[in-house]
Amino acid sequence: MAAAAGLRALGAKGSGWLRRGPWAPLTTGFCSGGPAGIGRPEPGPRPTIARQRDGIRDNMAGRPSCCNSSAHSTPFSDSRNILLAYTVSLQERNIVLSDPKRRNALSLAMLKSLQSDILHEAESQDLKVIIISAEGPVFSSGHDLKELTDEQGPDYHAEVFQTCSEVMMLIQNHPVPIIAMVNGLATAAGCQLVASCDIAVASDKSSFATPGVNIGVFCSTPAVALGRAVPRKVALEMLFTGEPISAQEALLHGLLSRVVPEERLEEETMRIARKVASLSRSVLSLGKAAFYRQLAQDLRTAYHLTSQTMVDNLGLPDGQEGVKAFLQKRKPVWSH
Amino acid sequence: MAAAAGLRALGAKGSGWLRRGPWAPLTTGFCSGGPAGIGRPEPGPRPTIARQRDGIRDNMAGRPSCCNSSAHSTPFSDSRNILLAYTVSLQERNIVLSDPKRRNALSLAMLKSLQSDILHEAESQDLKVIIISAEGPVFSSGHDLKELTDEQGPDYHAEVFQTCSEVMMLIQNHPVPIIAMVNGLATAAGCQLVASCDIAVASDKSSFATPGVNIGVFCSTPAVALGRAVPRKVALEMLFTGEPISAQEALLHGLLSRVVPEERLEEETMRIARKVASLSRSVLSLGKAAFYRQLAQDLRTAYHLTSQTMVDNLGLPDGQEGVKAFLQKRKPVWSH
Amino acid sequence: MAAAAGLRALGAKGSGWLRRGPWAPLTTGFCSGGPAGIGRPEPGPRPTIARQRDGIRDNMAGRPSCCNSSAHSTPFSDSRNILLAYTVSLQERNIVLSDPKRRNALSLAMLKSLQSDILHEAESQDLKVIIISAEGPVFSSGHDLKELTDEQGPDYHAEVFQTCSEVMMLIQNHPVPIIAMVNGLATAAGCQLVASCDIAVASDKSSFATPGVNIGVFCSTPAVALGRAVPRKVALEMLFTGEPISAQEALLHGLLSRVVPEERLEEETMRIARKVASLSRSVLSLGKAAFYRQLAQDLRTAYHLTSQTMVDNLGLPDGQEGVKAFLQKRKPVWSH
Repeated sequence: MAAAAGLRALGAKGSGWLRRGPWAPLTTGFCSGGPAGIGRPEPGPRPTIARQRDGIRDNMAGRPSCCNSSAHSTPFSDSRNILLAYTVSLQERNIVLSDPKRRNALSLAMLKSLQSDILHEAESQDLKVIIISAEGPVFSSGHDLKELTDEQGPDYHAEVFQTCSEVMMLIQNHPVPIIAMVNGLATAAGCQLVASCDIAVASDKSSFATPGVNIGVFCSTPAVALGRAVPRKVALEMLFTGEPISAQEALLHGLLSRVVPEERLEEETMRIARKVASLSRSVLSLGKAAFYRQLAQDLRTAYHLTSQTMVDNLGLPDGQEGVKAFLQKRKPVWSH
Repeated sequence: MAAAAGLRALGAKGSGWLRRGPWAPLTTGFCSGGPAGIGRPEPGPRPTIARQRDGIRDNMAGRPSCCNSSAHSTPFSDSRNILLAYTVSLQERNIVLSDPKRRNALSLAMLKSLQSDILHEAESQDLKVIIISAEGPVFSSGHDLKELTDEQGPDYHAEVFQTCSEVMMLIQNHPVPIIAMVNGLATAAGCQLVASCDIAVASDKSSFATPGVNIGVFCSTPAVALGRAVPRKVALEMLFTGEPISAQEALLHGLLSRVVPEERLEEETMRIARKVASLSRSVLSLGKAAFYRQLAQDLRTAYHLTSQTMVDNLGLPDGQEGVKAFLQKRKPVWSH
Repeated sequence: MAAAAGLRALGAKGSGWLRRGPWAPLTTGFCSGGPAGIGRPEPGPRPTIARQRDGIRDNMAGRPSCCNSSAHSTPFSDSRNILLAYTVSLQERNIVLSDPKRRNALSLAMLKSLQSDILHEAESQDLKVIIISAEGPVFSSGHDLKELTDEQGPDYHAEVFQTCSEVMMLIQNHPVPIIAMVNGLATAAGCQLVASCDIAVASDKSSFATPGVNIGVFCSTPAVALGRAVPRKVALEMLFTGEPISAQEALLHGLLSRVVPEERLEEETMRIARKVASLSRSVLSLGKAAFYRQLAQDLRTAYHLTSQTMVDNLGLPDGQEGVKAFLQKRKPVWSH
């Protein structure tokens, strides 16, 4: 009952969904939109770009044409400058790893920027879906090895892995679905990022590896996400040999939910994202939290939790609106 | 040891296999053969049909020809009227969802009828296997939305989901293997029913979806069974988008154990069922209970439990008979 | 922290990795190289053959030519006689089930021999990878049924299953990757052995079954390994019907990591083994232990454990060497 109440609070208000654990609270300000803190080595420009665009909501009146959703030829037109003014109509958030020269390495700066972008406006009832993609031929090569040398020392190493783990858990604990759109190579923590997203769509030229053993660093943290996505023999062969698997193999084994030709990658990903964005955020949030929570439970506990979740869901305004609309053979109008 | 004793009791006597949990005991009488209780909305005729037919046992002498297993042209000839008289020779129980006009919706009445049919003669040593199928092009469309309106209220909703969950757990806790035979669309709780069966065979025209998000009701209870059957990315894309997957995709991802052309569906399902029916019930019961129980345990505990299960199994009359028959190069004769 | 310290000890010293549980300690002497104890029925010659061969290390000077790794035409040339003298250069250990007349049945003698061979030199920093294969058309038919008769009695049965379970857990708890190379039929505990290895490569003519139900003995202990390797519907259809699945189906469902034509089986397996043998043992050991440990943990605990594992890994000599070598664009030289 207490659990259900917590879920109801999450669905209705979106608060309390970032679970605290044995680690200290995040230093990144919750929902701060500004540039994230930068790691010690190589401070520089912000390594991620976050763009939002209009969804398919009807309350678009009064919006400037620059972010009109009908501009399909530039689906990711940068709406950063008008972000604060127009968040009410911005439903799809696209976060782009934008450091292709360094193969989109997940440096501490990149991780904090990614964390900040994922947290940005997370509690806004208008945000419906997040898409994580990357510039260049490498989705992400994983940690920045310059940050893992002896000189940096174990405390710095610990901060890197803790921050990375927080980002991966944030994706799972986030109230809206997060989709990875992959077009290229994703290795080590880059592969972990794909495995950690709720949905993963990739082009058929993509590939995936956990090659840490080649440089004497077993991909133990990527293994957490990988081992929960694919059969253990597949995970262990990847981890023990460091060799890549193709997008088709990744689909076969559950690392991806969909593989398409490169030229259809964005279209297919956006089709899924738009479908998600057309649904009720409160319903998706309630369901996402319940899904991950029940996975680890025994069957009876899982059904006890989710049966209450179903009752709570029907008690949500959007739950009743959806059922009524169906019985009245009309399109539902979500409260958010 | 206590666990092993419990399993031995299950195998030998078939009692105690319905685990009790935080919910109240089932109101349906255990092993009652009569019509189940009907939910408040739309009382009507019994929405499931249960038929049993002969297995391949040798003790068929004296049975009326109407239920002779050699009548392969009418494999599901209704033996309802003679059920009580001839249960001793009825090994395969076929339960058919029979409300095609309402797309075999899992109304409370349907769920209770299904529960009653699954429980019927469950402790009979003659029952060897249960097959759940459906009339019409839709295997099941899931819950009856008329039962999930505001007017019905949260207590009624809770009864619906609790009953549904009890049916799904009953399938797993039942002493004999339960096979889903699917020929068409299975959605929401209908998809959950397929995912909950021990074995699932489908025609290649079948498809599977959890489309609750379209009507503002996330398929949280179906997600319990789905999330334990397929990789989480596949489950989440289905749950977040509501879009269907094909039978081939369902096979690829583990939701089904077998896909065949429509014209071979019954033949293939019955082949599996007859194979199961030719085996020792006490051995299958012991093994089924141990399988589900060890799945959630750590490896050492799982091996400790199942090693004792193996010893117990060898102590069963059918365990020793099977080993002896093999070494004597003859066919085993099961005690039941 | 304590966990991390334990892992560090494992990585650095290789001790303490054999976890103790509710069962008594192994009677087989740890790392004893001699013949293992023989079960009561049919004592005879040692049923496994263990061969080691050179890896690709550079410190090969002074070794006799009979075990030179360049002799690729006889990759498994028996180096048993020189084992003690040359273990320092022996990185790949090949254990062959060598009782083809009895279909490589996992008799108690076979299990103890296998256990002894797996334990042999396990703590040697030179051992990098173990490959388990078999002579003849049957990889292994599972337990020796002559050991499971009424005459042997429950205490003997218990010893058989306990020993078998210890072997399977030993594979998982062993500090180096263990690869199954399968060319033929693997049934019951033979299928369990394949499922228990970290990596499994099979020829396309191989097949896999858990047919115990046919002789009245449900494959409950094989189900522990099978149920952790493949989707539960696939496992249950195999367990309930006893019917085999092909190598391709086994790959599809996660029981194997790779399937190749028979003529390429050894080449492909050795390619993987050589890759593993070229890596740092301390790094692989640390990662293997962390992988299996985190699998059963909740996400936050898993990331807490593995983040510390990553820091520990970077503190290993081979961790720092690997990172340095990468940044200096040279090949790493592992300490072991």
